[in-house]
Amino acid sequence: MRFYDFKGAPSPTKVRIVIAEKGVEIPTESVNLRTLEQQGEAYRRVHPGATVPTLLLDDGTRLTESHAIAHYLEQLYPEPALLGRSPRERALIVMWHDITVLEGYVGAQEVLRNGSEAFKGRAVPGIEPFEQIPALVDRGRRRIGLYIDKLDRRLDESEYLAGDRYSYADISAYVTVGFAQRAIGDDPVAGHAAVARWLAAIAARPAVVAATQ
Amino acid sequence: MRFYDFKGAPSPTKVRIVIAEKGVEIPTESVNLRTLEQQGEAYRRVHPGATVPTLLLDDGTRLTESHAIAHYLEQLYPEPALLGRSPRERALIVMWHDITVLEGYVGAQEVLRNGSEAFKGRAVPGIEPFEQIPALVDRGRRRIGLYIDKLDRRLDESEYLAGDRYSYADISAYVTVGFAQRAIGDDPVAGHAAVARWLAAIAARPAVVAATQ
Repeated sequence: MRFYDFKGAPSPTKVRIVIAEKGVEIPTESVNLRTLEQQGEAYRRVHPGATVPTLLLDDGTRLTESHAIAHYLEQLYPEPALLGRSPRERALIVMWHDITVLEGYVGAQEVLRNGSEAFKGRAVPGIEPFEQIPALVDRGRRRIGLYIDKLDRRLDESEYLAGDRYSYADISAYVTVGFAQRAIGDDPVAGHAAVARWLAAIAARPAVVAATQ
Repeated sequence: MRFYDFKGAPSPTKVRIVIAEKGVEIPTESVNLRTLEQQGEAYRRVHPGATVPTLLLDDGTRLTESHAIAHYLEQLYPEPALLGRSPRERALIVMWHDITVLEGYVGAQEVLRNGSEAFKGRAVPGIEPFEQIPALVDRGRRRIGLYIDKLDRRLDESEYLAGDRYSYADISAYVTVGFAQRAIGDDPVAGHAAVARWLAAIAARPAVVAATQ
């Protein structure tokens, strides 16, 4: 197995936290997204779609989505369980991850990729050029706001997103909120006490500290 | 358990196909998205976020994302397996579902919700009003095109998306391609022989016929 990573990007960070929580060692290679190394020939041989992370399995299978990599690692290294134990808990983890992707992550991506100079001509992930659509910056900000409101209502009644136990849903949302904070500039978490309490608890976990330092 | 469904919408259709493949009966209620019944008081009591589908469990837990509902039903009714048997197969199914959501479904949604008269003021799912951004219609069309190209390369080397066996990845992608065909008007599948072969195979499955008629 070989893990293709980049410390400055949200998706591979989710995988890095999963690996640290499981306490395993996986040979890791960094692909510098700031210098567009992912578009170079060497990485395109690993993953023609040119996104990071990739987990390359020993039989040549390429896993290119962080959620899929988490499911693979969960089965190889079941403890500590990050994807749930009961049918209900497992479904709630997938649910909060999907809400996070479609309502939070997409919003943060809209803001960052359509508003930042660095993403000119690259408004959509991958290798195909896409022009920025400036109106998406405001839309993305509003979507992030609604997503944080939703997290706050949930975390006001539940210690973690999927219930009493920390899970991959928290990892996914924690990384997405950090991504949104950087994309927006001002802090979308301000005034959301339950989200702030939960963020502090996740940030203090030894595996999260180790994976994000 | 109670399943809140609507026959004309893509997300609940994925769940309807899963239920039909499992051969189970679940009490089902239709929520008419064409008359905005999802925004009425009765459905907002079931799911304040006003999206369909919802699977309401007997303990009051609300599962609101089709992928999460599929994971729940898979554990209650393991046969036929739709979410994989080996770690590799399970991960590939999650991967192709996630690619489908982020590269295909989001693109189709951009086209439909930002271009159609019926979605004026409702360009983002949920109850909050969002103005349409007409430039997203072209961007969404291009994203759908790239997604279909990717499916075609995969299905040229593999019978189904995650390998030799039909799975939830195929259900998710099949529904998304149908959604994209309706959103775009002209057929994005034209010229993609492997996608056409695979679409015909999925469409002929008795459970798919029963769930989509």
